[in-house]
Amino acid sequence: MPQALPVVAPQAAHRPLFAGFDVGGTNIKVGVVDAEGRRVAHRSLPTEEERGSDDAARRMAAAYRELLAESGVAAGDVVRAGLATPGPMDIPAGKLLKPGNLPHWHDQPVRDQVSAATGLPVTFANDANAAAYGEFWCGRGRDAQSMVMFTLGTGVGGGIITEGQLIEGRHSCGGELGHILIDPSPTAPLNTLGIRGSLEGYCGSYGVLARAEAAMAAGDPTSLRKRLEQGAELTPLMIAEEAESGDQLALDVVLETARYLALGVVTMVHAIDPEMVLIGGAMTFGGEGSRLGERFLARVREESQLRMIESLRDRVTISFASLGGAAGYYGAAGLACREHQR
Amino acid sequence: MPQALPVVAPQAAHRPLFAGFDVGGTNIKVGVVDAEGRRVAHRSLPTEEERGSDDAARRMAAAYRELLAESGVAAGDVVRAGLATPGPMDIPAGKLLKPGNLPHWHDQPVRDQVSAATGLPVTFANDANAAAYGEFWCGRGRDAQSMVMFTLGTGVGGGIITEGQLIEGRHSCGGELGHILIDPSPTAPLNTLGIRGSLEGYCGSYGVLARAEAAMAAGDPTSLRKRLEQGAELTPLMIAEEAESGDQLALDVVLETARYLALGVVTMVHAIDPEMVLIGGAMTFGGEGSRLGERFLARVREESQLRMIESLRDRVTISFASLGGAAGYYGAAGLACREHQR
Repeated sequence: MPQALPVVAPQAAHRPLFAGFDVGGTNIKVGVVDAEGRRVAHRSLPTEEERGSDDAARRMAAAYRELLAESGVAAGDVVRAGLATPGPMDIPAGKLLKPGNLPHWHDQPVRDQVSAATGLPVTFANDANAAAYGEFWCGRGRDAQSMVMFTLGTGVGGGIITEGQLIEGRHSCGGELGHILIDPSPTAPLNTLGIRGSLEGYCGSYGVLARAEAAMAAGDPTSLRKRLEQGAELTPLMIAEEAESGDQLALDVVLETARYLALGVVTMVHAIDPEMVLIGGAMTFGGEGSRLGERFLARVREESQLRMIESLRDRVTISFASLGGAAGYYGAAGLACREHQR
Repeated sequence: MPQALPVVAPQAAHRPLFAGFDVGGTNIKVGVVDAEGRRVAHRSLPTEEERGSDDAARRMAAAYRELLAESGVAAGDVVRAGLATPGPMDIPAGKLLKPGNLPHWHDQPVRDQVSAATGLPVTFANDANAAAYGEFWCGRGRDAQSMVMFTLGTGVGGGIITEGQLIEGRHSCGGELGHILIDPSPTAPLNTLGIRGSLEGYCGSYGVLARAEAAMAAGDPTSLRKRLEQGAELTPLMIAEEAESGDQLALDVVLETARYLALGVVTMVHAIDPEMVLIGGAMTFGGEGSRLGERFLARVREESQLRMIESLRDRVTISFASLGGAAGYYGAAGLACREHQR
């Protein structure tokens, strides 16, 4: 069953508190979270990317101050912020490099911009890594010692935590699980970066759409065709809806996605041997509690078990993540908490 | 250029010292190593697997005591031993499970057996993990903060070190890099465990031999055929020799192995973002300093760069390991040293 987000009333929260900022191409989410990983308050603001990161940092700080005022939290109770952004980035330097969906933020010192605007020391992290850390800190992975998370969306991201430590990598690229390679064929799909045979090319939304389009082009019957004829655009959501309604082609596309994802899961289980693997992100085909989502997850598990060494078979938990779109700001706050406690 | 093993004279070694035992199916290697990762003395004894692990532990202890006597090291200078064995194993429990090449050692408490026989506290580790740790501690990886190592032999093993910590895994299966999956095809080769499409199925010796046999069966001209007609058995060494002598089929098999290995390298680089990737083990086609070995490594690098995200391209060092067959006992001693210093 879907799990409720951990929350706590402001007056009952365990001080100190931490702010988490999760920057996406469309929205920026802000949360205030206590030291036990419980949310005290949250809100969202538009990214308005084209106004640049310094402007966004000021608007983030304003939203954060309003949030404190509304929830009756004293500013002094918040001791550190976490900032999660898309990569590529240079975490030690606190800088973005050239993230594709934030073209006006390239090469900006975002950590210091947010720190200056909020008056808080800031811990900087990759967004998919932060989401994984959020699940580990206070989501589905909260009782695990080690965890690998895959986030499915337009792209495929991820995060790896071993012995409580997030693997951020030497070049701030740890957990780029969309770019693990699952196919050596010269005809394997290319991903958006031109890399052939990567997990993302099969399990990112464009890979899923491409397989559906190829099956339709082959003439297979499908209720998707009717919806496209009505002028709708093909999306993973439409595929999920038609699969739920019994369309075989759409269902096959979803379950093939599960099979490809399982290759990535098995690879990471053999490399890391984690206690738990979580599947999250925007494209989980209805996700936890939905008939199709549960069928998708069951297929990921089955196809993974088939390919695992005996010592690991049936011993690694594979589940949906539980924090949904809040994982990023929970995780950013959690990384801030970890740094504060060091 | 091949790097000499780090060694030191017994009287110049920095105390305390550590013993390293590396158990293989044929031989057991024993080394005494100082706290700086320099070897003081070493020897090898036959495993004689069928006599069981308790017998082997007593012979290991006897060999170790002789080694101390011969090198003039006082027994009290050695404070802890490391024991590396093939998996599967239960590291926290100090037990072997059912390693394929040690059938008479199944379910034996080898850590305590070696501890009782030597009188030393013992740190227990997987052999490929120990080899990786050895390279990290005092081999080619000694200046790196993080490292992934692939060991090529009959099987393919590995080890991952991030921020100085070896990833041993929740079920003592961390770094099972031979079992990462690189091919989703239903016709991909099976490995010895029946898993389809794994790196080991392409880059373990049997995968390499199978590709050479398939190419010969297709009738391609090759000097390998003549050697087989003379009664020799096809081995990776023979393939390497004929490739060095200019045989195109043999060379293609070697360079294809490099291409497949590169898929595994890229996967681990994207997952871990390490400072360095090392290639070691018994099947490196002549290895460092040989013409063929360098050509193999160059191909691994080229094929890896082709598939890496821009942020990592040309930024991760890919090299041969430098400790050769000694990596396991150096690493076992290093893990003992690390545990002692905690």
